[in-house]
Amino acid sequence: MSAPTVTRLVYGRGDFDARLDQLLAWETVSDTSVNQVVDGVLADVRRRGDAAVVEYTNRFDRLSTADMAELEMGPERLQQALDGLSDEQRQALETAAQRVRSYHEHQLQQSWQYTEADGTMLGQQVTPMDRVGIYVPGGKASYPSSVLMNAIPAKVAGVSEIIMVVPTPDGEINELVMAAACLAGVDRVFCVGGAQAVAALAYGTETVPRVDKIVGPGNIYVATAKRAVFGLVGIDMIAGPSEILVVCDGQTDPDWVAMDLFSQAEHDEDAQSILICPDAAYLDAVSASIAKLLPTMERREIITKSLNDRAALIEVADLDQAVELVNRIAPEHLELSVEDPDALLPKIRHAGAIFMGRYTAEALGDYCAGPNHVLPTSGTARFSSPLGVYDFQKRSSLIRFSADGASELGQTASVLARGEGLTAHARSAEYRIKPE
Amino acid sequence: MSAPTVTRLVYGRGDFDARLDQLLAWETVSDTSVNQVVDGVLADVRRRGDAAVVEYTNRFDRLSTADMAELEMGPERLQQALDGLSDEQRQALETAAQRVRSYHEHQLQQSWQYTEADGTMLGQQVTPMDRVGIYVPGGKASYPSSVLMNAIPAKVAGVSEIIMVVPTPDGEINELVMAAACLAGVDRVFCVGGAQAVAALAYGTETVPRVDKIVGPGNIYVATAKRAVFGLVGIDMIAGPSEILVVCDGQTDPDWVAMDLFSQAEHDEDAQSILICPDAAYLDAVSASIAKLLPTMERREIITKSLNDRAALIEVADLDQAVELVNRIAPEHLELSVEDPDALLPKIRHAGAIFMGRYTAEALGDYCAGPNHVLPTSGTARFSSPLGVYDFQKRSSLIRFSADGASELGQTASVLARGEGLTAHARSAEYRIKPE
Repeated sequence: MSAPTVTRLVYGRGDFDARLDQLLAWETVSDTSVNQVVDGVLADVRRRGDAAVVEYTNRFDRLSTADMAELEMGPERLQQALDGLSDEQRQALETAAQRVRSYHEHQLQQSWQYTEADGTMLGQQVTPMDRVGIYVPGGKASYPSSVLMNAIPAKVAGVSEIIMVVPTPDGEINELVMAAACLAGVDRVFCVGGAQAVAALAYGTETVPRVDKIVGPGNIYVATAKRAVFGLVGIDMIAGPSEILVVCDGQTDPDWVAMDLFSQAEHDEDAQSILICPDAAYLDAVSASIAKLLPTMERREIITKSLNDRAALIEVADLDQAVELVNRIAPEHLELSVEDPDALLPKIRHAGAIFMGRYTAEALGDYCAGPNHVLPTSGTARFSSPLGVYDFQKRSSLIRFSADGASELGQTASVLARGEGLTAHARSAEYRIKPE
Repeated sequence: MSAPTVTRLVYGRGDFDARLDQLLAWETVSDTSVNQVVDGVLADVRRRGDAAVVEYTNRFDRLSTADMAELEMGPERLQQALDGLSDEQRQALETAAQRVRSYHEHQLQQSWQYTEADGTMLGQQVTPMDRVGIYVPGGKASYPSSVLMNAIPAKVAGVSEIIMVVPTPDGEINELVMAAACLAGVDRVFCVGGAQAVAALAYGTETVPRVDKIVGPGNIYVATAKRAVFGLVGIDMIAGPSEILVVCDGQTDPDWVAMDLFSQAEHDEDAQSILICPDAAYLDAVSASIAKLLPTMERREIITKSLNDRAALIEVADLDQAVELVNRIAPEHLELSVEDPDALLPKIRHAGAIFMGRYTAEALGDYCAGPNHVLPTSGTARFSSPLGVYDFQKRSSLIRFSADGASELGQTASVLARGEGLTAHARSAEYRIKPE
């Protein structure tokens, strides 16, 4: 296998804009055949419940389950998975869970209200959702860390019941995932995946209770099913491939930065790793580190394809130009591998997570720093946020008028309602106006 | 026209559950033909930009516009609409805008961070979106109050640019809507609607800048287009018909409650009005008020159809049973028309907005109380919130490890990464571990 050919660009030179746009372009498109399969599965599970879920699971995951009960993994089995971990793994998982919980407790939103001079009270009451579903992918993308990152914020929010679904193709169970579910306090686990799992959570079946929101990543069938049930239940973002953008001042060990780029590229052939630096010689040094280190990597084939197809080393005039590119790209992960990351921070408008300084490798954040690793991808940091406690809480507006307040403001409401031709609105307000 | 036959139910009696479920059932379904039309429009606007938008607008809104520039309504024209209001209307609109702004300022979320003993800093940086699009329906559902309710939270969040789209079928311009846009500080207005407007906002054209998020209600074509572009841009909820649930202790003037029910029903034949009360005689009294008042209503035909098809008067044993039903229905608007609404409040888990006490008519909240009138419908209050400033802000996680912190936690990350088979992650963390 030859060394990867990483795209090298200079800001503003030649067809820079077009080439950058081309590298960044990503859209999760469900073609007609995927849509048809998903629509069929959703309708069938909605109509036939457990029976349909069992049939699809037996077919797609090559199982021979008799009924839904067999697909549920009871609390004893989860505890057994946790007990089966090595001491080192159990301690690492517990450290991660504790740090993630502690960080997310800072995100809890509180109810608030205020009272105006005439006694009118306004505010918002914040409450947790009753029940949420967590989708965990099976096979090679089945990560215990993802279980923690999805379940713990829901628990911190006060969600009463967490239902996890995870496919077990050919009956293969990921013990670490089950252990993480136990540790995170997941309430029920069903070994079901794909659109049939999303359908079971969204509509409910005889065995699987209907949830209020579905979170967690999945393949194109899962993403398409989530998009289809959006509105009936809440969903999180539709995730694209993972990406890292490293801004370096040219002073970090190039091996470190090369490995940081690899840590993104090893996820997936579609993953994206970009390095921006004002020092051309440093970009050369990182290229050399890439060539040197790649042969030593276990997942070098995935890394090579990812770097060839989607990576870039970009030379800029200065760090201000780097920040301009950051805001244009709105990266999922941003490493500010520079001497004074705090100086750049106020200028960063769009990024999922910002890893500040040379010591802050993205890998630490992926597992155990505390912040969530479920982050907006493909530029969606322009308008969305890391998964958090706020995704499992919701608000009710509070309005309590005094007799005086209702009388006073009723006149304004009446004028506006009549302006819109809504006279029942107007008369409802006018009833509360006191006679002069 | 005969008096409406409003469904009368007694909690738990007969087939109560089935009949309630049937009354509540609502799903916004885009059939295949709608999907095909929308997919075609989206693809065409994406490819041909302004030219396609102008063509669809001329066709669907029966205009003969030469180019996109003609469809933009400049700031002078908006100011002219504001100047053209009567003093009474202008003052009412300004009062509403001021109260909405003041309430929403309480929702602003702040950045936060904390530092651990070893110097590690964690937190979140909160930033506004750059540019958002507001869809305002044309024709009979074109409401100036909606312009305020969508634009003001975005302004309060600090969004730099607000683009409004509103169709003008047959060239008819709603002066109140334009005046509200001027007052709310909308930056640009395009007289375009339907899927073509959503496409222009999501993809951008030569003239219409691409936005980060699209909010605001629309017909089935607009809703379908928003669902399709979700992920490329952010969207708000897909809204169903509006609903009110009144819980009354039987002591409010029955005319007031009847008018509150009408104020929901007059919106739309699909709107839903439900009254819950422990006093059967009071339900009779409200029925009598309905029969008495209905003939005096301007929109009595719409009200009658809405009440016949979707309303209910429900008798319960006590207020606790009423609260149980509230949480099951998760209403968009909840009126607690009772002596002591504060006693019920802590038990309410799911509702878009809670109007407390006999004086707090929903109509006041619709226009000028301060809280947003864009609320989760069709039971989606189980998992979503009123539109707010938080819908126009987003968060970036912040992580800054000290050398000591990275060394310490690198060991945990390494164990977890190796457990997942992600060795580049492990090695990236291990580089930051200090030698013993």
